[in-house]
Amino acid sequence: MTIPDAARSLIGRRLDEVPTPALLLDLDALEYNIALLSELTKRAGLGHRPHAKGHKSIEIARRQLKAGALGICCQKISEAEVFVAAGIGNILITNELVDPIKIEKACALARDAQIMLVADDPRMLSEIDKAASKAGAQMNVLIEIDLGQNRCGVSSIEEAVALAKRAADLKHIKFGGVQAYQGKLQHVSGWVQREAIVKKTTALLSDYLAALEGEGLSCEIVTGGGTGTLEADCELKTYTDVQPGSYVVMDAQYKAIGGRTSGPFALFRHALTLLSQVISVRKDWFVLDAGLKAMSSDAGQPEVIGRNDVSYSFAGDEHGILRSDSGAALQLGERIAIIPGHCDTTINLYDYYLVHQGDRVVDIWPIDARGRIA
Amino acid sequence: MTIPDAARSLIGRRLDEVPTPALLLDLDALEYNIALLSELTKRAGLGHRPHAKGHKSIEIARRQLKAGALGICCQKISEAEVFVAAGIGNILITNELVDPIKIEKACALARDAQIMLVADDPRMLSEIDKAASKAGAQMNVLIEIDLGQNRCGVSSIEEAVALAKRAADLKHIKFGGVQAYQGKLQHVSGWVQREAIVKKTTALLSDYLAALEGEGLSCEIVTGGGTGTLEADCELKTYTDVQPGSYVVMDAQYKAIGGRTSGPFALFRHALTLLSQVISVRKDWFVLDAGLKAMSSDAGQPEVIGRNDVSYSFAGDEHGILRSDSGAALQLGERIAIIPGHCDTTINLYDYYLVHQGDRVVDIWPIDARGRIA
Repeated sequence: MTIPDAARSLIGRRLDEVPTPALLLDLDALEYNIALLSELTKRAGLGHRPHAKGHKSIEIARRQLKAGALGICCQKISEAEVFVAAGIGNILITNELVDPIKIEKACALARDAQIMLVADDPRMLSEIDKAASKAGAQMNVLIEIDLGQNRCGVSSIEEAVALAKRAADLKHIKFGGVQAYQGKLQHVSGWVQREAIVKKTTALLSDYLAALEGEGLSCEIVTGGGTGTLEADCELKTYTDVQPGSYVVMDAQYKAIGGRTSGPFALFRHALTLLSQVISVRKDWFVLDAGLKAMSSDAGQPEVIGRNDVSYSFAGDEHGILRSDSGAALQLGERIAIIPGHCDTTINLYDYYLVHQGDRVVDIWPIDARGRIA
Repeated sequence: MTIPDAARSLIGRRLDEVPTPALLLDLDALEYNIALLSELTKRAGLGHRPHAKGHKSIEIARRQLKAGALGICCQKISEAEVFVAAGIGNILITNELVDPIKIEKACALARDAQIMLVADDPRMLSEIDKAASKAGAQMNVLIEIDLGQNRCGVSSIEEAVALAKRAADLKHIKFGGVQAYQGKLQHVSGWVQREAIVKKTTALLSDYLAALEGEGLSCEIVTGGGTGTLEADCELKTYTDVQPGSYVVMDAQYKAIGGRTSGPFALFRHALTLLSQVISVRKDWFVLDAGLKAMSSDAGQPEVIGRNDVSYSFAGDEHGILRSDSGAALQLGERIAIIPGHCDTTINLYDYYLVHQGDRVVDIWPIDARGRIA
């Protein structure tokens, strides 16, 4: 992705001069979040392998690695290709690869980087073994375990043991351990409720690990965990490494569920802002130039920054409506800053971040893996 | 946007060989839809000015113009810039421009193309007049009228007349008429219900037009209407031109609301398909590789093509779940074709269409104005 000259010319400008809608990234908040995750996991004795599916940025991945990340996670092979091409040397692809062409691509990437795959089916293992053999590689594979989120992954100890044995038996596969990421847990509202479920699923994970160990299938890597469960994951220490992604920018959805009072979750800062503008002042409402193409609507309501007197609602692909119960008076052309509801799907709408410190644009970073979903 | 070589190499391949998720465009269905709109509006004696905010493709815009469109509509100045650069010579920007920099850009575009703007506030008219004067141009401006959708636009006859007078009085503005697009009407479910509301709002529009005419403010252009109201708009003939966008590819949302039995709406064909793959076969469900980053979730459920025995639900940014009440057995790796719920916001996630005829990829078209939201 080449940054257009018109965008590049915004470097050095004040935020109130940039065309809206624009996706802003607060450099100081980003750096703070990167350092905080590094510190929290280090203190807990865990590794961290931040997920890049959200930020999709080579520059951010590099900063995460510099801060001590073991590597990064990607969801798709086309995403991983972007990061390997940029010299990122350690990538866990956290989603099952089934298409033989994609598995071949993963084996090809393994020439230039340490690539780990996940699997939940013996047929995937056979395909990986076949492709690895052809490529003269040995692929590191984790067995994916489903602890109750009802998506990918094996959901019984018997299946997990059988699959791990199969992986260990195949010549061109190295059984590396397990992945047990539970997306649904990340967004359970309220710390007490979330911690209780995390403890329960982590106990279940321990049963899996004990059974595998009992069969001589030692798990070098036990990976999972996200931004919402980070505090509990760091205390329980069942994972060897955690793979949060949203922590690096945060969003309104994560803000809404809350962390433990004064716990580290509450310390992550909001680094992602959607800057919009009032384009119509009507009798009972104000129209913003930011709708469904400016931020995703799939999770939680976006939050207007610094204004409790107005609330946002989506009003089409290119429109949002602000209403006020307290008679707030907004001006035509006024800039309105918003925390997007869901960072991952919002970032995926943009080609670049306008990186700012305070009210100045200091850089532009391409969202390198935007749209890389295959 | 340059198409990657890996994507270009898919031309000539069978659809079951392309990496998933992929956005497919059925060339024959597209051509059929373009011809049908042209025929319907011609028969009704109306012009058509298809909206490009949905397809965002220079190639599609060219085909629409070739079929007799008066011009195209864009929502944003950055979108219009893409089409003007490609030689598209007539563009209505259907959304209010407030930022003086954007208004200057519109005046600059008017050197290379016929550009029309809309306004719902006298301050916008002043800004347009000022910028047009500076650019040595005269800008064609339509007054936007809100007939009850509660978004942009003036909502009283007095306001409309005052604003039109103001436009007509300004030296560097030509008062061109009115825009009265009603987005909400497009998706009213059931033909009888939709027709009744369209008749009511069209009667209201006629009152506005009569009042303007009475003041000597004749409206050369009366534009509005979309895919959902097309049949009624063609019968009522109050618009001089209609601006549907979704008709060119259609989506599950439009399919669900239905047209008049055997009416032309029912004849538009589905040209847009999301191709996905089963990546995990579990006990009670199947996991697809297509989630919130592969298609938008903002409107209506996507529809699995050719299979009544499974239903899709979103299961995260990169996952979808298929469930079956009737014990359908899907295979690991099986390709599943889906009609996206909402075409505009789904297309905006992709860099290109894989254009196909039957089961062969015949071309790749960039989604040139993707992400152009400012």
